[in-house]
Amino acid sequence: MQTQLVAALDIGGTKIAGALVDGRGRIRLRAQRATPAREDGETVMRAVAEVLAELSAAPQWARVSAVGIGSAGPVDASAGTVSPVNVPAWRDFPLVARVRRAAGGLPVGLVGDGVAMTAAEHWQGAARGHDNALCLVVSTGVGGGLVLGGRVHPGPTGNAGHIGHISVDFDGEPCPCGGRGCVEGIASGPNIARRALDRGWRPGPDGDASAAAVASAARAGHPVARASFERAAQALAAGIAATATLVEIDIAVVGGGVAGAGDVLFAPLRRSLRDYATLSFVRRLTVVPALTGTDAGLVGAAAAVVAPAAEGGAGVADAV
Amino acid sequence: MQTQLVAALDIGGTKIAGALVDGRGRIRLRAQRATPAREDGETVMRAVAEVLAELSAAPQWARVSAVGIGSAGPVDASAGTVSPVNVPAWRDFPLVARVRRAAGGLPVGLVGDGVAMTAAEHWQGAARGHDNALCLVVSTGVGGGLVLGGRVHPGPTGNAGHIGHISVDFDGEPCPCGGRGCVEGIASGPNIARRALDRGWRPGPDGDASAAAVASAARAGHPVARASFERAAQALAAGIAATATLVEIDIAVVGGGVAGAGDVLFAPLRRSLRDYATLSFVRRLTVVPALTGTDAGLVGAAAAVVAPAAEGGAGVADAV
Repeated sequence: MQTQLVAALDIGGTKIAGALVDGRGRIRLRAQRATPAREDGETVMRAVAEVLAELSAAPQWARVSAVGIGSAGPVDASAGTVSPVNVPAWRDFPLVARVRRAAGGLPVGLVGDGVAMTAAEHWQGAARGHDNALCLVVSTGVGGGLVLGGRVHPGPTGNAGHIGHISVDFDGEPCPCGGRGCVEGIASGPNIARRALDRGWRPGPDGDASAAAVASAARAGHPVARASFERAAQALAAGIAATATLVEIDIAVVGGGVAGAGDVLFAPLRRSLRDYATLSFVRRLTVVPALTGTDAGLVGAAAAVVAPAAEGGAGVADAV
Repeated sequence: MQTQLVAALDIGGTKIAGALVDGRGRIRLRAQRATPAREDGETVMRAVAEVLAELSAAPQWARVSAVGIGSAGPVDASAGTVSPVNVPAWRDFPLVARVRRAAGGLPVGLVGDGVAMTAAEHWQGAARGHDNALCLVVSTGVGGGLVLGGRVHPGPTGNAGHIGHISVDFDGEPCPCGGRGCVEGIASGPNIARRALDRGWRPGPDGDASAAAVASAARAGHPVARASFERAAQALAAGIAATATLVEIDIAVVGGGVAGAGDVLFAPLRRSLRDYATLSFVRRLTVVPALTGTDAGLVGAAAAVVAPAAEGGAGVADAV
């Protein structure tokens, strides 16, 4: 008997990726479109439908048992709608119903992209075997997800673990979300780069002013570049420690582009964590880099929405 | 057939309270000793044993099926030990084993006092019927507990929901816990009073410099007293919003002595919450006063440790 498959969609502000994922989390077929993020809602939906059409044209589609969506947030899993910050035309967009129709009536599940990444890390990555974990994506934004009591914990609306928008500086700078001093406002890639530029770091001849360029400068010893990563690490540490103090996690897994800075981020992050994770029950908390790569969103979307995925992210393997 | 009972212990820095609690959460018998908090560990244990002896001398003891302990934290439910900040002689003290011996081998459960209060509020108080809730005790310290997915969530060591020691001001004042800018360092009763005194509020002729006296002054319109409660409310709001953003709660229940200030606390708390709980999935979060009173620790200790209590805090009612 041939293995069953899950169709996965990873919906972000830049691209809409689709895949057929097998029971071991391997990707069997891919399709992708750029996200027409500035167009109207139906145009964005058309790109999703094209990805689905490409997948469903393949002979393997006959073995697809469900569709899993991981979307940029906020999402509302209970209503089946999405309102991604970076896709302005989609506000309370009924993505689940539209995908179900486009996918011929298959069951469709929805989680936030941070929860999807967490499901992937818990199934196949650095959070594997951990019953209580926080997984973070530090990139253009800062997202995350939780594993509690051995299960991915999406929360009622699929947004739990949204660490980028907790305040660690309650008198701090206003955040586009409406809050103040949010982790994302200090620790995201663009904010790391902005802070370095504000304080006198200048890009090299190639003009690259990204967080990755700041990381290179930090590695070469540039004090302003180092300080900007240290500040990001401090905000992440305060947020990770808060999470551990609230829900008792024993590992924090950090992925996303900014985590690619390696020790430039992880060394000050581990140091700062000792300053904030002080109570006895959080002191043993460790921080490690994510193991799943750019396919985490797809693999996690598959894992998070197949029913038994709730039992530790091993759901797809069990179900298909 | 007569109803079964649970023996409950509520262990704090000031008193050790004990009770026999019935399946409806009613207290059938009480015993209490002052906590000899500055004495050696065996002296403190003797006070616990005296409370148990008084309870077990009663004829109803024959119907006791288990002992539930709610203790000042941190606790370690997995090791069965407690290390209450205010009882210096107890560090990793094996309270569960000692109580089991003193109680003739009955099963013994242990949770932190914030978790116990949460179990009581979920069973019989303002969190009743809510599947996802944060309950706080704002008093000499700031503690708390979580209800997630319809169940009290103590975490592996029984300390989850420890909101008093999350940082909302990561460059802020050092906290005795070793962190910085913790919620407790801004919002606890003694810190509300300290801040008011620092900024020029003076107690009346009775010399009462407690947070309750500051609350009276605030109610009478004293600007410094009001400002101190507003600052506490702001810190609580940032912490509650962080919790909601991380685990998706829909209600926060605030108890403890400081909550007795009523609108002096709750009005600015609700205002500040709008500044920090900004994402779509947390915007409907409400804040209400706790309904269970000074017996919450005892009732919750009973509810939290009887096995089915995990299924929504209704455990004692089901089990006995």
